[in-house]
Amino acid sequence: MKLKVGVMGATGMVGQRFIMALQGHPWFELSVLMASSNSAGKKYRDAAKWYLKDEIPAGISDMVVEEINKKVADKYGLDIVFSAIPAEVAREVEASFAESIAVFSNTSTYRMDKDVPLLVPEVNPEHLGIIEVQRRNRGWEGFIVTNPNCSTAGLVVPLKPIIDNYGIKSVNVTTMQALSGAGYEGVPSMAILDNLIPFIKGEEDKMEIEPHKILGRLEKNEFKYAGFEAFASCNRVNVLDGHTEAAFVYTDKDFEIEDVKKKLREFEGEPQKMGLPTAPKPPIVLMDKDDRPQPRFDRDLGGGMAVSVGRVRKKREKLLKFVCLSHNTIRGAAGASVLNAELAYKKKLF
Amino acid sequence: MKLKVGVMGATGMVGQRFIMALQGHPWFELSVLMASSNSAGKKYRDAAKWYLKDEIPAGISDMVVEEINKKVADKYGLDIVFSAIPAEVAREVEASFAESIAVFSNTSTYRMDKDVPLLVPEVNPEHLGIIEVQRRNRGWEGFIVTNPNCSTAGLVVPLKPIIDNYGIKSVNVTTMQALSGAGYEGVPSMAILDNLIPFIKGEEDKMEIEPHKILGRLEKNEFKYAGFEAFASCNRVNVLDGHTEAAFVYTDKDFEIEDVKKKLREFEGEPQKMGLPTAPKPPIVLMDKDDRPQPRFDRDLGGGMAVSVGRVRKKREKLLKFVCLSHNTIRGAAGASVLNAELAYKKKLF
Amino acid sequence: MKLKVGVMGATGMVGQRFIMALQGHPWFELSVLMASSNSAGKKYRDAAKWYLKDEIPAGISDMVVEEINKKVADKYGLDIVFSAIPAEVAREVEASFAESIAVFSNTSTYRMDKDVPLLVPEVNPEHLGIIEVQRRNRGWEGFIVTNPNCSTAGLVVPLKPIIDNYGIKSVNVTTMQALSGAGYEGVPSMAILDNLIPFIKGEEDKMEIEPHKILGRLEKNEFKYAGFEAFASCNRVNVLDGHTEAAFVYTDKDFEIEDVKKKLREFEGEPQKMGLPTAPKPPIVLMDKDDRPQPRFDRDLGGGMAVSVGRVRKKREKLLKFVCLSHNTIRGAAGASVLNAELAYKKKLF
Amino acid sequence: MKLKVGVMGATGMVGQRFIMALQGHPWFELSVLMASSNSAGKKYRDAAKWYLKDEIPAGISDMVVEEINKKVADKYGLDIVFSAIPAEVAREVEASFAESIAVFSNTSTYRMDKDVPLLVPEVNPEHLGIIEVQRRNRGWEGFIVTNPNCSTAGLVVPLKPIIDNYGIKSVNVTTMQALSGAGYEGVPSMAILDNLIPFIKGEEDKMEIEPHKILGRLEKNEFKYAGFEAFASCNRVNVLDGHTEAAFVYTDKDFEIEDVKKKLREFEGEPQKMGLPTAPKPPIVLMDKDDRPQPRFDRDLGGGMAVSVGRVRKKREKLLKFVCLSHNTIRGAAGASVLNAELAYKKKLF
Repeated sequence: MKLKVGVMGATGMVGQRFIMALQGHPWFELSVLMASSNSAGKKYRDAAKWYLKDEIPAGISDMVVEEINKKVADKYGLDIVFSAIPAEVAREVEASFAESIAVFSNTSTYRMDKDVPLLVPEVNPEHLGIIEVQRRNRGWEGFIVTNPNCSTAGLVVPLKPIIDNYGIKSVNVTTMQALSGAGYEGVPSMAILDNLIPFIKGEEDKMEIEPHKILGRLEKNEFKYAGFEAFASCNRVNVLDGHTEAAFVYTDKDFEIEDVKKKLREFEGEPQKMGLPTAPKPPIVLMDKDDRPQPRFDRDLGGGMAVSVGRVRKKREKLLKFVCLSHNTIRGAAGASVLNAELAYKKKLF
Repeated sequence: MKLKVGVMGATGMVGQRFIMALQGHPWFELSVLMASSNSAGKKYRDAAKWYLKDEIPAGISDMVVEEINKKVADKYGLDIVFSAIPAEVAREVEASFAESIAVFSNTSTYRMDKDVPLLVPEVNPEHLGIIEVQRRNRGWEGFIVTNPNCSTAGLVVPLKPIIDNYGIKSVNVTTMQALSGAGYEGVPSMAILDNLIPFIKGEEDKMEIEPHKILGRLEKNEFKYAGFEAFASCNRVNVLDGHTEAAFVYTDKDFEIEDVKKKLREFEGEPQKMGLPTAPKPPIVLMDKDDRPQPRFDRDLGGGMAVSVGRVRKKREKLLKFVCLSHNTIRGAAGASVLNAELAYKKKLF
Repeated sequence: MKLKVGVMGATGMVGQRFIMALQGHPWFELSVLMASSNSAGKKYRDAAKWYLKDEIPAGISDMVVEEINKKVADKYGLDIVFSAIPAEVAREVEASFAESIAVFSNTSTYRMDKDVPLLVPEVNPEHLGIIEVQRRNRGWEGFIVTNPNCSTAGLVVPLKPIIDNYGIKSVNVTTMQALSGAGYEGVPSMAILDNLIPFIKGEEDKMEIEPHKILGRLEKNEFKYAGFEAFASCNRVNVLDGHTEAAFVYTDKDFEIEDVKKKLREFEGEPQKMGLPTAPKPPIVLMDKDDRPQPRFDRDLGGGMAVSVGRVRKKREKLLKFVCLSHNTIRGAAGASVLNAELAYKKKLF
Repeated sequence: MKLKVGVMGATGMVGQRFIMALQGHPWFELSVLMASSNSAGKKYRDAAKWYLKDEIPAGISDMVVEEINKKVADKYGLDIVFSAIPAEVAREVEASFAESIAVFSNTSTYRMDKDVPLLVPEVNPEHLGIIEVQRRNRGWEGFIVTNPNCSTAGLVVPLKPIIDNYGIKSVNVTTMQALSGAGYEGVPSMAILDNLIPFIKGEEDKMEIEPHKILGRLEKNEFKYAGFEAFASCNRVNVLDGHTEAAFVYTDKDFEIEDVKKKLREFEGEPQKMGLPTAPKPPIVLMDKDDRPQPRFDRDLGGGMAVSVGRVRKKREKLLKFVCLSHNTIRGAAGASVLNAELAYKKKLF
């Protein structure tokens, strides 16, 4: 008996990735697609501007989209809802579902709340411990677990073995982010052909705060943020999928570069140890070729859940440089939420 | 009476920019085009794979290309030769011309030599003082002046008012470089469509050393390198022309962000004060809009000689961030050499 | 004393091209910019999403946009209004202006009306003769002159010397149209990167009917459509500006290919003979190189008003093939209207 | 026991597709990779510039490349060799192998020879009957079977049900061809960004002759070419893989458009009936959506072996228009050869 799952914001680009991530999932079964009133009542294939290369899965194409509403959870007997709804409406909507069921949200609204985990299963699985507090605080039977912003998601995975082994004093990161991060109609072709745009609204702020929570510790039911500095410069480039990030990391302790590579290559987190269904093995694909990772070639590694890391260099004592790449709508969005749900389920949180 | 000018490496992309930069120049007259033996003897229009939008200038199209050889300088009575030849052959070839005439080189070979200026006229015009030493050392009547690598060229201009006013402790820069930097056939379309490449051979090394010389001082006929650290991460993106660079600058003294903007906006160098023919006014175009500079729109400002600077932000005490953009084959190559020649000529070095 | 000119739909891409085309015009002076109520009351620079590389001209940037309304013509004492408004509203709006002043419209609404010229000055200048009828029919003091759809505009110019010299039995044309034809936000980057789209709504219909009127004759105040067949297949490709069209033309009489080339090369129309200010000389740029025309290199020839023609081949008896290229928002839109106005003015129609 | 297979030209783009097409093939086993002397002796992973997204298959990566030579066939006991070698060297090389084994060639050299089949299994499987003549003529124990040029390959499949049902008088086709057709380094990014190129050397000639042979009949051991006219206009566009072609087809008999669609949709050839391992089912994917086929979405249908057909329209009596799309390095190259080999094997030709 699989758990019954709903997706909110099912017609958008992240919604589409949720649908694909749940196809043939061993534990979860997609029971209902929810979207705004514009789409409600339509067959999914008519409501969605499907942008993926794989066709809409057979069973999904004819499903009638429901309007986003708590009652849908009861109607379909949902165990889980995945959320990719706009931040402006998420506080109320996600809470209404969390009263009774598990909510895994890709939306930024709850990410920094004191009793909400901002979860990356390879990095901070123990943060799920806050759920108990969240339920008590809010009187919910369900709960909310969030995943980070798409560009944070790719960065914190390689930062984890680095902070654990050498400590981190400061991180400067420059991103080259894909078009799909802005939504299907987000970037006009006239804006980006023979061009790049050195600005993504709100992105630098998110990248400069979220890593502190994710790489911090949960102590006595409080999040102690990691103490390092994080500075970001975010750019949009003419690439369909896959965020590339060039990071300079100032460490607390000095390191041998081959030792860093070994730590990255051998890194495993809870998902790998527990054998979660969508856990990439390995979570970090270390690349030795000078010119890798590259988005077109490497974004789909590990089913889009692996983070590719290359150009690992020691610039001077305690200064590490690398380039990482991850699929922004899989590892950075839908896939992240699904992995979070797998971890929470396996840990018997619901 | 204009000075007679030759261009070596005239068929390549930088060579083509030299030709355009010298069209209608008030002081210099293009007398001869030189290239390798493959091109020698052909009409220029047959020898060059012309890639610029403007057509080959009328007087140039039919010129017969000469093979690169010192004797050409005598034959045409050259006063100046501009060089865009491969680094492997430059040491001997450029020296042979420098025995008698002024050489302005875009090639990396002589850049770091102790008696050769690595010149950016707005930044270190006083480095021309080393020419006297160079001539004495080498027994030349002429001399060699070099300009920096295309990505260094764009960065050091905004760094100049910053180092002068606040001092610089460290610079981390991530570049997003244009296709033309690799030459016409350098980047196959199959390699870069829906992609980017996080590697450009030799580029990071150049960016990490050249700024120290350029922003250093000439004292008692010796270059004292600037003491800051420079770290670079260089990427190729799918843009025709214009290198975009995201820089994090750690300063010695703290700053008010509006004061930094004012210093950038009001910055002027020798070329502006002297009114050199191709000097951009202003040399730095400060941009207040969140999403600028952008290569397609801003690379041609100041005739391709201006450096656009935007996203000027204070990240924390003594940490400045900005994005700069400059035209890699004009400010970063041919235009740089021509401006160098204008400065040297005005300073009566030849 | 210049004529006073207004532009309707001034904030869009064609509107921007109107502004540029009218800069420094010897006969016309841009007096007012009109747009929808969303833009009305704002400074132009705030109302328009300016997409051109050249900056907004100094005098235009601060102009306050007026809402589209007949009264504006009186308020500013307009002699001419150029229209780039949506087809749905054009019938009423353009008529209201035509009651008193000259309207040159880029919109499709009136193109096929029996008493309205669909004008390409090089091709059918005599069609202006219908204006007298139009005024009588409609009781207008002013009038409406239309220009064709952007892809028709580029095709009919080379068809003119062909039909005049050899007759045309049939034309099959496949277009590869630029992004700007769909408006700034018309084609999402996600839709077109590594892709093309074999469909442009309404385009094939326009291309299959408009040439008949343009290349037809005005006889006894009636348009006699040209009798040939026209079939079109329209595609969107990832190019900023410039529509490329591959045409197969079945002629009535056989031809020598060199004779066709000569006719194309030497072709001149009224605008060239009369020396109209924006008339390209020559109107057709015949290209002999195998791989031309190409949009990035050739779209701006003749200030964007020339039509480049290449790959002129005889496929068999009475079957001609060529590729033509023209700038879709200049020759295919704003520039076309301005040239129409120049012709009508010179012919003393107002 | 699988047949032993070699690939000549194994390091190029078509060679890479051969390798992928042969992975896990039920009848064929890849035994040796051959290439020019530059690559000979190297491990495949070092010799090839691998451009596919899927990694080099495990067993292939370490294989040592052999120099192209007849002796290799003996050394490895080959039953089949697939050829993707340059046309200039193919006449001699392919013949040397055909003396003893089956050669399936992607190269143009032998295509139009009187005793060589130019084979598309869905279209002209009976042309294999000429092999007997070929063997007799040339004294070979093996034989050569060729597949057409990549743009011909996509066109002839939909033409087959049309010629069979309505007859064809004339075909005009304009292609928009992908970058990979020119080889990995064939089209510099500087040449094609924001651009298209209306010329591909030799391509129009091939498209204008090959269909006549393919759609012709084999009668009394002679090819009777199909009698229709074929005219082509070939263009390169900025798309990685997938040739799109807009075709106007003048038929002998008139047709109902829905009947044409039915014939296309229901079309099956020998490969489908025989259940050949790589035969796409259906061979033609008929698309009803106005804006399809599109290369990024549809090129991989049927494992890259299906031809997508859309925009099927009746333009007037006996004039049909459609757009077809096929994967140029699979259906148009390596996949075509493999399907040919499957057919020949099943028909017991070797």
